[in-house]
Amino acid sequence: MIEPLVLKGFRDSLPYEEIPKKKIQRKLEDVFETFGFVPIDTPVLEYENVLLGKGGGETDKQIFHFEDNGGRKVAMRFDLTVPFARFLALHHDELAIPFKRYHIAKAFRGENPQKGRYREFIQCDFDIVGCDNAQSDFEVLSLMHASFSAMGIGNVCFHVAHRGLFNDFLSSIGVGEKSIDILRCVDKLRKIGRDEVGKILVDITGDEQKSSRILDYITCGDGRPFKETLDIISSIIGSETESLARMRQIYALLDGVGIADKFIYDASITRGLDYYTGIVYETFLTDIESIGSVCSGGRYNNLASLYTKENLPGVGASIGLDRLMAALIELKSPLVSDTANADILILPKPDETLKASDTAFRLRGMGIRTDVYLLPEKKMKAQYDYAEKNRIRRSLVFGTDGYVVKNLETRQSVTVAGLEEVAALCR
Amino acid sequence: MIEPLVLKGFRDSLPYEEIPKKKIQRKLEDVFETFGFVPIDTPVLEYENVLLGKGGGETDKQIFHFEDNGGRKVAMRFDLTVPFARFLALHHDELAIPFKRYHIAKAFRGENPQKGRYREFIQCDFDIVGCDNAQSDFEVLSLMHASFSAMGIGNVCFHVAHRGLFNDFLSSIGVGEKSIDILRCVDKLRKIGRDEVGKILVDITGDEQKSSRILDYITCGDGRPFKETLDIISSIIGSETESLARMRQIYALLDGVGIADKFIYDASITRGLDYYTGIVYETFLTDIESIGSVCSGGRYNNLASLYTKENLPGVGASIGLDRLMAALIELKSPLVSDTANADILILPKPDETLKASDTAFRLRGMGIRTDVYLLPEKKMKAQYDYAEKNRIRRSLVFGTDGYVVKNLETRQSVTVAGLEEVAALCR
Repeated sequence: MIEPLVLKGFRDSLPYEEIPKKKIQRKLEDVFETFGFVPIDTPVLEYENVLLGKGGGETDKQIFHFEDNGGRKVAMRFDLTVPFARFLALHHDELAIPFKRYHIAKAFRGENPQKGRYREFIQCDFDIVGCDNAQSDFEVLSLMHASFSAMGIGNVCFHVAHRGLFNDFLSSIGVGEKSIDILRCVDKLRKIGRDEVGKILVDITGDEQKSSRILDYITCGDGRPFKETLDIISSIIGSETESLARMRQIYALLDGVGIADKFIYDASITRGLDYYTGIVYETFLTDIESIGSVCSGGRYNNLASLYTKENLPGVGASIGLDRLMAALIELKSPLVSDTANADILILPKPDETLKASDTAFRLRGMGIRTDVYLLPEKKMKAQYDYAEKNRIRRSLVFGTDGYVVKNLETRQSVTVAGLEEVAALCR
Repeated sequence: MIEPLVLKGFRDSLPYEEIPKKKIQRKLEDVFETFGFVPIDTPVLEYENVLLGKGGGETDKQIFHFEDNGGRKVAMRFDLTVPFARFLALHHDELAIPFKRYHIAKAFRGENPQKGRYREFIQCDFDIVGCDNAQSDFEVLSLMHASFSAMGIGNVCFHVAHRGLFNDFLSSIGVGEKSIDILRCVDKLRKIGRDEVGKILVDITGDEQKSSRILDYITCGDGRPFKETLDIISSIIGSETESLARMRQIYALLDGVGIADKFIYDASITRGLDYYTGIVYETFLTDIESIGSVCSGGRYNNLASLYTKENLPGVGASIGLDRLMAALIELKSPLVSDTANADILILPKPDETLKASDTAFRLRGMGIRTDVYLLPEKKMKAQYDYAEKNRIRRSLVFGTDGYVVKNLETRQSVTVAGLEEVAALCR
């Protein structure tokens, strides 16, 4: 006998988890499609040097990599961004540019498992490639907003900033050349707090006053409406830079469709990654901010440069579905709490199997999710246990005067003559 | 610069492929859910010995396997059946039995790529575990039927047989002990033809007469209705065996819901795999039979026995989505031919971006898939090229008297005053 073990850091998804996961995925796909975004897929396995973007040397320990039976060095994708860059380089001639794609798929990392972190996880990325303008920045922000609305999450706040604007500010106080170190340090504000960030900034700039001016800058949006923060930044920097103009355009578009109140300019958002060049953003659920950002991204202006000379500017975002699921469970969202496998369960007597299959056939034809209990010789208790485990709310038995539909929560029964009426009770 | 190569036997899925793939998947999921089947998922990576069902020895060359950074011997799943058996052994106490699950996911095999075969492919499995009766056999057949109906594939024929009934026949002619070899040989009928099978059967049975009786048996259903074939088999065997009774019950249920005419009893269907013990089936599209079976499966009575002493009989089927996609493309199914990313494309002038984003916002709110061309400064030709590449059928420009909606196929335009009318044109 072999022990049926699952690898450390991996997990099965049981129906009560998989049903809501699929619902969320569908909601997102529906929204993406309403925005004209198209799905793509790429292989789970790729050449190691393609994924790592380099010829050789030591391989990152977090990557699952091996030599296949043909002696090729291969690796499992660790995100959806790198494969997308490779995809763009390979296919840009075949694609409609601007290219608006989404990709919901698994990625793999060998990092040490901790609470809420797994070695196999689902990413949901969406990007617009081929333009660098306020409309495309806005389109992604607008899609983020629509996604959370579609999931019924109203208490959400999108924290937006602009890398270039931060650099404008740093230049204005004379530390522009240290921008990469400063951006990385500021990115840790939520994790390590204002005091720690201040100390590191003193180390970087060698100047306490400059450190405190940076701290003031990154917290200048605190609690303020988006537009007000932009005006404050304008007066801090002392000029209307190109990046500021871009942010004003984006704000105008957000305001134009009436969703600006969900967005704030949060100058502390910098995103750690090097490839961002313009707008950057993170998304927080105001009821459980502690869970961290559930949707992040930004503008990058040369994602595929490792693989092609073609210049492909882009803007995009990524939702961590596992973290989002955890949040929705904590928020008791209806999206994750209803996990019934069916609207109604037919409980036939042993001699009623023909009748049961015919009834199921017709109810399903009306769009009613219908389960038939397949072991009619079992005791009543087993039958109701089955209904409970599947969280089914209604049962149907064949009475002498018609269909007896029982509400399994209230335990009240009602007898109806026709299947149309059964269907109506289920809706 | 790194060459953006994809591994041999792997492939990207471009929007024109991924859009229909998602549509098919959704159709199937909708049907599965109407039948009360629930989704599960399992990890792509598992312990090698768990997937291979053995302690050590040489590893199958078709399996992607390696040692991970923690020194564990791991492998990528090569089907969804073995992980499901492992899943059942690990979780059966938590599941509602009978357990009706579906699983649509990728599997991986290192076999040499050939036409229509890839090293990464999508399987779609559905099973009922925990009962051994005609109702559950019927439920899976009925679900298969409903799945193909939902995909709009009417010209389909389900070829059904019963392993036990074949064994009854073999016993009746005195070659029961050679059943495994004979079943495997008969399974090749479609591939190598009647004459070749006949020769091998002579080798196995050592008896030309018996070989030809087997050939007669496996072709006895040819062109006949299901019930007639059962009667013929009854008279060939000379008794009403238990397996025959089961097939008659299944037939009665199929007939009861009016779908029996899509099923034939085809005694040549045996399925190569050892674990099948009862009913077995394959599915052929009558317009392109040559493509092979697009949905196959059967009853197995001890799938999880490698991992648990719990007795878990089951019945299920598997759809090869890649083969099905290829078939639907050949059949010019509407399910795969409409790959537009949007119902309408807004083409704003450079100074109309606010108006465009507001119009898109409102149309999307009405459920209309709306794309906005994000490079308004580009020439007309680029804009219409974009529409064509995305296969969008309608464009919208802002006219002086209202919205000008153009049908891009007929090139006819109509001006309407309100967005409700635009939406109506798109529906």
